Amino acid sequence: MTELDRFIQLLAKLPGLGPRSARRAALFLLKRRESLMEPLAAAMAETARRIRACAICGNLDTGDPCAICRDGKRDAGLVCVVEDVADLWAIERSGAYAGRYHVLGGTLSALEGVGPEDLHIGALIERCATGGVREVILAMNATVEGQTTAHYIMDRLSASAVDLSRLAHGVPVGGELDYLDEGTLAAALASRQKLKG
Amino acid sequence: MTELDRFIQLLAKLPGLGPRSARRAALFLLKRRESLMEPLAAAMAETARRIRACAICGNLDTGDPCAICRDGKRDAGLVCVVEDVADLWAIERSGAYAGRYHVLGGTLSALEGVGPEDLHIGALIERCATGGVREVILAMNATVEGQTTAHYIMDRLSASAVDLSRLAHGVPVGGELDYLDEGTLAAALASRQKLKG
Repeated sequence: MTELDRFIQLLAKLPGLGPRSARRAALFLLKRRESLMEPLAAAMAETARRIRACAICGNLDTGDPCAICRDGKRDAGLVCVVEDVADLWAIERSGAYAGRYHVLGGTLSALEGVGPEDLHIGALIERCATGGVREVILAMNATVEGQTTAHYIMDRLSASAVDLSRLAHGVPVGGELDYLDEGTLAAALASRQKLKG
Repeated sequence: MTELDRFIQLLAKLPGLGPRSARRAALFLLKRRESLMEPLAAAMAETARRIRACAICGNLDTGDPCAICRDGKRDAGLVCVVEDVADLWAIERSGAYAGRYHVLGGTLSALEGVGPEDLHIGALIERCATGGVREVILAMNATVEGQTTAHYIMDRLSASAVDLSRLAHGVPVGGELDYLDEGTLAAALASRQKLKG
């Protein structure tokens, strides 16, 4: 196997790229060697070399503590608990959150044999116990596993002094009622917000 | 901008990856640092360093002449002319061809100002003139530009001693007549192959 075949084969392992699109992407890169291929290879190698999980929150960053935990302007008393770094990135993109995070690294799952000791739950409990944390926002996915994990953390923190909250359920902004599932509609009705009276 | 942002931004330039799927691919890589991210970065850097256009046929390879031109078991008297390296790869995947190639690097296009001097046509003519080439197969795409380019090359080689052929038009294997365009059906009828008599 040539170096080129090996490169295409590795590229095809990326999610969203099959063998065909990996070949297309490889050729695209080969034709843009200086402008894209070399910078991308260098950025990838450098990121791989420097990336690590933040010792405080579990976020992946090229520094430890991560940029968010280092940022003194962010409220260290507010901790948003997410399943995965992808969820952290999603909340960051919203631009609506100025607290810190705690990345669990997954959800509890009896089926897949994931127990509390496999997630960064102990570190969260400790973080809450050592003071400085005022409120914990549980921002797990609205799935069975996510909610099971949220309940477990709620239990573990019930004796703690920190406040607990979770993300609101409701109609997505821009969403049409006709296309929404019944569960979301029921949640949106139950959490309806008073406009008058 | 952090190293990580820059990496994701470069990744998003690949065809088939938008900003969202680039983030997903980046996170996928970050979680497989040793098994995928480092090998991919190394293979990409090494391929970028060694890739060059073959001086004989224009194929992209990590050696010059390319592996196909170096392969003594391939018929040097048979030259298949293609528009792009992607087409060469497609024919190689068919496993049905054991000759050499000539990559034009595009098609003639009055609209985009691409003339014969912008393509590797001169090198093809020279290759045919210096002897050793018995037959040239024109394997351009069945588009207006591809066929214009094929006609141009046919003209240029009309005085030469080499035989000329083109790929057959017809029903794709596995294709259904009901879904085929009229042009392909007409070509398949005109080139029908006798079974008996």
